[in-house]
Amino acid sequence: MSTILKGIAASNGIAIAKAYRLVEPDLTFAKSTIDDLDKEISRFKDAIAASTSELETIRDHANKKLGADKAAIFDAHLLVLNDPELLTSVEDKIKNEKVNAESALKDTTDMFIMMFEQMENEYMRERAADIRDVRKRVLAHLLNVKIPNPSLINEEVVVVAEDLTPSDTAQLNRDFVKGFTTNIGGRTSHSAIMARSLEIPAVVGTKEVTAKINNGDIVIIDGLNGEVHINPTPEIVEQYKKEKEKFEIQKAEWAKLVNEKTVSKDGHHVELGANIGTPNDLQGVVENGGEAVGLYRTEFLYMGKDQFPTEEEQFESYKKVLEGMKGKSVVVRTLDIGGDKKLPYLKLPEEMNPFLGFRAIRLCLEEQDMFRTQLRALLRASVYGNLKIMFPMIATLNEFRQAKTILLEEKEKLVSENIPVSDQIEVGIMVEIPSTAVLADQFAKEVDFFSIGTNDLIQYTMAADRMNEQVSYLYQPYNPAILRLVKMVIDASHKEGKWTGMCGEMAGDEIAIPILLGLGLDEFSMSASSILKARSQIRGLNKSDMEKLAEQVLQFQTNDEVIEAVKKVTSM
Amino acid sequence: MSTILKGIAASNGIAIAKAYRLVEPDLTFAKSTIDDLDKEISRFKDAIAASTSELETIRDHANKKLGADKAAIFDAHLLVLNDPELLTSVEDKIKNEKVNAESALKDTTDMFIMMFEQMENEYMRERAADIRDVRKRVLAHLLNVKIPNPSLINEEVVVVAEDLTPSDTAQLNRDFVKGFTTNIGGRTSHSAIMARSLEIPAVVGTKEVTAKINNGDIVIIDGLNGEVHINPTPEIVEQYKKEKEKFEIQKAEWAKLVNEKTVSKDGHHVELGANIGTPNDLQGVVENGGEAVGLYRTEFLYMGKDQFPTEEEQFESYKKVLEGMKGKSVVVRTLDIGGDKKLPYLKLPEEMNPFLGFRAIRLCLEEQDMFRTQLRALLRASVYGNLKIMFPMIATLNEFRQAKTILLEEKEKLVSENIPVSDQIEVGIMVEIPSTAVLADQFAKEVDFFSIGTNDLIQYTMAADRMNEQVSYLYQPYNPAILRLVKMVIDASHKEGKWTGMCGEMAGDEIAIPILLGLGLDEFSMSASSILKARSQIRGLNKSDMEKLAEQVLQFQTNDEVIEAVKKVTSM
Repeated sequence: MSTILKGIAASNGIAIAKAYRLVEPDLTFAKSTIDDLDKEISRFKDAIAASTSELETIRDHANKKLGADKAAIFDAHLLVLNDPELLTSVEDKIKNEKVNAESALKDTTDMFIMMFEQMENEYMRERAADIRDVRKRVLAHLLNVKIPNPSLINEEVVVVAEDLTPSDTAQLNRDFVKGFTTNIGGRTSHSAIMARSLEIPAVVGTKEVTAKINNGDIVIIDGLNGEVHINPTPEIVEQYKKEKEKFEIQKAEWAKLVNEKTVSKDGHHVELGANIGTPNDLQGVVENGGEAVGLYRTEFLYMGKDQFPTEEEQFESYKKVLEGMKGKSVVVRTLDIGGDKKLPYLKLPEEMNPFLGFRAIRLCLEEQDMFRTQLRALLRASVYGNLKIMFPMIATLNEFRQAKTILLEEKEKLVSENIPVSDQIEVGIMVEIPSTAVLADQFAKEVDFFSIGTNDLIQYTMAADRMNEQVSYLYQPYNPAILRLVKMVIDASHKEGKWTGMCGEMAGDEIAIPILLGLGLDEFSMSASSILKARSQIRGLNKSDMEKLAEQVLQFQTNDEVIEAVKKVTSM
Repeated sequence: MSTILKGIAASNGIAIAKAYRLVEPDLTFAKSTIDDLDKEISRFKDAIAASTSELETIRDHANKKLGADKAAIFDAHLLVLNDPELLTSVEDKIKNEKVNAESALKDTTDMFIMMFEQMENEYMRERAADIRDVRKRVLAHLLNVKIPNPSLINEEVVVVAEDLTPSDTAQLNRDFVKGFTTNIGGRTSHSAIMARSLEIPAVVGTKEVTAKINNGDIVIIDGLNGEVHINPTPEIVEQYKKEKEKFEIQKAEWAKLVNEKTVSKDGHHVELGANIGTPNDLQGVVENGGEAVGLYRTEFLYMGKDQFPTEEEQFESYKKVLEGMKGKSVVVRTLDIGGDKKLPYLKLPEEMNPFLGFRAIRLCLEEQDMFRTQLRALLRASVYGNLKIMFPMIATLNEFRQAKTILLEEKEKLVSENIPVSDQIEVGIMVEIPSTAVLADQFAKEVDFFSIGTNDLIQYTMAADRMNEQVSYLYQPYNPAILRLVKMVIDASHKEGKWTGMCGEMAGDEIAIPILLGLGLDEFSMSASSILKARSQIRGLNKSDMEKLAEQVLQFQTNDEVIEAVKKVTSM
């Protein structure tokens, strides 16, 4: 019998493959007394040997795929694993106390971990984490339990997980991972955004895929309709193969638009940009015919490290993106950390409501060294392309003025050091806080452009955490209140001869696009994989009709009424 | 030398008295070896005797002030304290192990606590908490440290605390507590609201009063300017006595307005209501000439209990308030629980951002039994006065429609049971979520009235947790974005012939009042203690001038510009 689970369609397409569970293994065990001590010690030694060989494979793999920098962590693990003091202690414990290897390993490593954790030196304290990691691996071998190693996947699979963290996704091999499905998350969760960026189908928020799917089950991920089929009948597989083919044909149609402009039927041009996280994403932007980078999220430069990226490292990344876009516009958002995004080397206060807390520009205006380093790197890179700088989470004009003053100070300094800086850098803001949308007419006098961040704007305007399943019904992109705020921003910018973009998920949404076109949005920035579809859609619409549609839905009362009207007018 | 600390003026007036620290005592101790065992045992017995006598006093006091119900907890503590098994165990431990009484008590009670905590039965598990409480008291006596007992205060004091919880404030004796000051909190924190309701001066958010003030220090609380003076010079005391007198004279002037209408110089009438939490607050409303209850917070009925209040209990409370107001309007807000307000008997999910979570109407629409019980109690009470029902945290029209449908269903049921229900009940909503303000024109077609809850509206509009000190600079009531939203709501209601009130802290704020009068706000609801001052202020203003002022500030860019303009126009 095949089982169907419903979830949220997070990334287009269809995948059919064996399941690969990326789930924390159960490593519980009981303490027991051992008679054959030699056998127990050799069991322990085997586990160490197997762990060593596994770690070496992972290390070599990381070295090739991610660089020596990232592989170094596994060298550290190998050192711990073969530390003679540790090995001898465990063996002695087995011998002297006649306990099983699992128990001896646990007690011994507990002692080492405690010792390291109490040290003053931060570097030494971090060794405690290494010991925990290594212990987990050895225990898994002792218990004959498999620890998932996504980087070692070497056949076509769909990944099944509770949720995917940024480091999980960094390890996934695009050649073999054909899709994924998770228990939690929504369209704007990290894992959903990653799926679109990797262009693999995904269904998230299914609540129970990890409970229902075993390793090796055949799974269909229907990223078009948000369905997951477990061990489907041959008929269903056949049907989905056809669907997949149809989708591929449609994609091929869209692909023909890669070098076309994005122009409505009645000749109105808008710009379709891509949201990117690292220079590596540029390839996707080019392949999908992106006309700009509408949002370069610089957080990834700061994440997965143990210290701030240097000015030089940042400069290299920014330069790479600017050069790669060959004079096309690149909107770089300054650091948006805090909230749900933490850095291991930046101590932030624990907050009761992190989404309403000390994050993004609020943090940057306090941590000025960090902020100034980023701005210098950006200014230095500015001569390599068409840079636009954007500040996130601006709530008041004073914040914008402060941030811009700091930027100009750094520019002055560079100029006085004879370092070339472009004089054409536009400086704009994210509009993601309601106050800024409501006061957009005043902001428009001072900023060069707006970019509407709908993910946050919706959550604040509806006062509903977009990660909280219990209030997810309030995440309503088409609620007329949201659409009115969007209109206020666009109108305000045009009145002052400025432009408005949108870099939230809404910009690539097929229901939103007709309305946004009608409201006069100048730039739509989305996952690169959504660009061609959006271009195809916009080329089929008349802007003048969409203006009428937009006017009409602004007077509606509910999200659902808007969806219905759009579907009717655009015959979806 | 006198020390001055700056804080936030949370409640008007001046208090001069000795400090009473309401601070968790330091109960750390070292384990030591004892030679004179008899002396140690008698030291332990003395501590038990002193604790017993203290608990009996507290129990009797609670019995008189709070009722047998609340006093029962102390009976439970007395039982634990004199449990022979516990006492013998501690004494044996002292004798056998030659350890000090503190250490013997700690080890013995640890064992009992662990035992109770592992029990299946919830009642038994709660006994673990009793043992902890009792241990704390005995340890305090052993260490000669004072545990604060606010209910036993019997001389004039000002209370000094990290923060005040609802249960702390419930225990404060109005006759003796002349003022208080805390480390944390802002104008809208619980402790600030309580201070205004009790009409005692308070300065909150001083950051370090508990570090700087010792028990018995002479302290001046300047609730007018937000200052705390510690051990002031006689000259400063003299000066403040004069200030206090001046304030008393001004209060006496205001008191003459108790039976006057609230009318501007040019004859425009507005309604000044009070925010209340319990029927006991009615006295203050009457004494201060409240023209209505603009907000009856029903949470207090649900708090400090171990089960939901029955329909009957609620009915009695609502009836008391309605009768007490003698036909004047009483706006009752349905349960606003969740967020930072929890109930011990209602299990809610842990949330990452509770202020953006499952609370208020969102919760009530799910927990319908709870909601329906409250609505029935309200409907039954409606015939005893002028009831208006208001739903909190409404973000979409659908939520309002659902809530109103449930209300009408309950009304139908009551009517069919021949229970009298008023046909004049107005049904309105809190406007505290940006989406609702932006869409107020649509809401105005369906609701009978709006009440703007500025505390939340500001925090969501600025995306800044109002309890989070690090973003407190963003809590800007006069930010033009906020004022524009307020205007949208008022205009929308008037266009449909409805009215708008305001029940957030802003309604009683002297900078906001001129603007709100100019914007056409119909009803201002505030702490009862602020009513007479507000009436005096409004009677000195011309509405037509304030209309011009309001029009002007709506085009301003920052909070500070607005403050400056109001001060200039109204010659503050």
